Amino acid sequence: MSTGKLTIDLAAVAANWRALAKISQVETGATVKANGYGLDMARVGQHLAKAGARQFFVATAEEGVALRRALGNGPTISVFSGHMAGDAQAIAGANLHPMINSVDQMLRHVEALPGHPFGLQLDTGMNRLGMEPDEWSALRDIALAQNPVLIMSHLACADEPDHPMNKHQLEQFEAMTAGLDVPRSLAATGGTLLGSDYHFDIVRPGIGLYGALPFEQAQPVVTLDIPVIQIREVAKSETVGYGNTWTAPAPSRIATIAAGYADGLIRAMGANAMFYHGSQAVPLVGRVSMDSITVDITSLSDFPESLQLIGPHQSVDQVAEFAGTIGYEILTNLGGRYDRTWVS
Amino acid sequence: MSTGKLTIDLAAVAANWRALAKISQVETGATVKANGYGLDMARVGQHLAKAGARQFFVATAEEGVALRRALGNGPTISVFSGHMAGDAQAIAGANLHPMINSVDQMLRHVEALPGHPFGLQLDTGMNRLGMEPDEWSALRDIALAQNPVLIMSHLACADEPDHPMNKHQLEQFEAMTAGLDVPRSLAATGGTLLGSDYHFDIVRPGIGLYGALPFEQAQPVVTLDIPVIQIREVAKSETVGYGNTWTAPAPSRIATIAAGYADGLIRAMGANAMFYHGSQAVPLVGRVSMDSITVDITSLSDFPESLQLIGPHQSVDQVAEFAGTIGYEILTNLGGRYDRTWVS
Repeated sequence: MSTGKLTIDLAAVAANWRALAKISQVETGATVKANGYGLDMARVGQHLAKAGARQFFVATAEEGVALRRALGNGPTISVFSGHMAGDAQAIAGANLHPMINSVDQMLRHVEALPGHPFGLQLDTGMNRLGMEPDEWSALRDIALAQNPVLIMSHLACADEPDHPMNKHQLEQFEAMTAGLDVPRSLAATGGTLLGSDYHFDIVRPGIGLYGALPFEQAQPVVTLDIPVIQIREVAKSETVGYGNTWTAPAPSRIATIAAGYADGLIRAMGANAMFYHGSQAVPLVGRVSMDSITVDITSLSDFPESLQLIGPHQSVDQVAEFAGTIGYEILTNLGGRYDRTWVS
Repeated sequence: MSTGKLTIDLAAVAANWRALAKISQVETGATVKANGYGLDMARVGQHLAKAGARQFFVATAEEGVALRRALGNGPTISVFSGHMAGDAQAIAGANLHPMINSVDQMLRHVEALPGHPFGLQLDTGMNRLGMEPDEWSALRDIALAQNPVLIMSHLACADEPDHPMNKHQLEQFEAMTAGLDVPRSLAATGGTLLGSDYHFDIVRPGIGLYGALPFEQAQPVVTLDIPVIQIREVAKSETVGYGNTWTAPAPSRIATIAAGYADGLIRAMGANAMFYHGSQAVPLVGRVSMDSITVDITSLSDFPESLQLIGPHQSVDQVAEFAGTIGYEILTNLGGRYDRTWVS
């Protein structure tokens, strides 16, 4: 076995979903886009459906089709990118709810699939997805006459509870949707944690389900153990890895382990990263290679068979910090070569 | 269609292989690990086998099994991680040649699969994979008596032709293998370009096949076009994207396109990245999201249906520079959601 072992705890995903549902006290959906944040959309979706989730959110119609195949009929599947050119067959065939982002998408939808359920996505200041206030004013009566099933928006700064943008977007969303008799959704994980003002009718957590920040109370979901290929003694002043970037300051013992940036271990984490053998931390040295990484295990008293990158001693978010990024990117880039086990 | 369109030119891969074979003038293998550097190991391997490649190199036994399935019997498949615990069945069943890295691996191999072909990997200074000079001295006679089919090593600094490490590793490799009647391999793409001293009996290019540096004469292989989800007008002083990191300096037109860091578009490329509409460059603004990116298209006179990240106007290596990394990482992280087309 020369590939890393990735263990995904579906029971923890379900526990995180229940914890967020308890916080929200409103209908709690599940965002499973990007292949369930890298953890397998079908398995995550099926497990959460069993736990009681009835509303699922994906990024693209293609993801919606795959999720419908996994979930069968029943659960609602909403698509954030809305109704793109060429999506009509997928939307109709898999009974997806496109979250319409623009007048163009609205026209495309009612022309291609009159009467097919859809939602509306409003921009409340992030300027990424959804209708602008002006656009919404112009389209509002026409759109509402078509009976949208959901009106949603997205927060730009929900990971920072004190950011004034949160309140601004909340007020904007309330102003744009006041008096409407349509279910509303503003909050993903961050918004769910901002308090009940942000919950409206449906919350749709993503990252919190998968055990990462900003949901500090989340149960961890992922464990990643990487097998050792070989161990060598390196003399003082010898260099290790590509570009000779690390020079041994003293006689050192170096383990080469079987994962690299092709497995999503971001090259930029470079020499900041730590691995664990039991509870003992050991540092990465030299550059991350495509398929391997070198680790200084001089401090260990034994010869490990594998080293752990993600687990009880080091969270997804700590690994993200090594590369100057966020846990979301670590999860969604977990590589295809790992030997995956789902436990529940 | 709400996913990016990735086009992979297999004819260009084959042309790059032929060009490197012409440079090497010795047997020229193909390194197709990490799923053919992200471009599909099976398709790349089959195409190169048709072009005449008879020696393939992968990182893990698991990859070797998948490649054997794609290639059928005949071509040689060598495994850089050697013979890891638990690999015997895969090595025997798929007739793989493990490149033995250590005494431990040697013992494991002859115990589990006596008589099964193997190669030897020597460390000539990179301190990542392969036997140390001392280890090699001790094992040499025993190992040679088992009739290894290849002796190989790997260069740490071949991308920098003037780096003294190249010459040092070459001399080390010659000293460790002098007088042996076993085929030898030292060069991947960089080494192939360093000149005939580095070629020995077999070269094994990887990155150059896929159109990236250090093979400057390579034909480009990859084109990546990302569809526009929507276009909006943003007023002066409005912010765009997560964390409000970009503020419009003037009234601007912003396109939201359907790919993000979950598709391997490294988040660190941030606001350095450019996209292309025809030959016109337009800058990324704000943060890369999981499934989308915002681009300032104010300078365009029309409304594009898609924007290009990789293509004739911008190479894989230029995209890598935006994120402070190398083309290898861009290729091996190309995401699973793209709609892939292989042309030949």
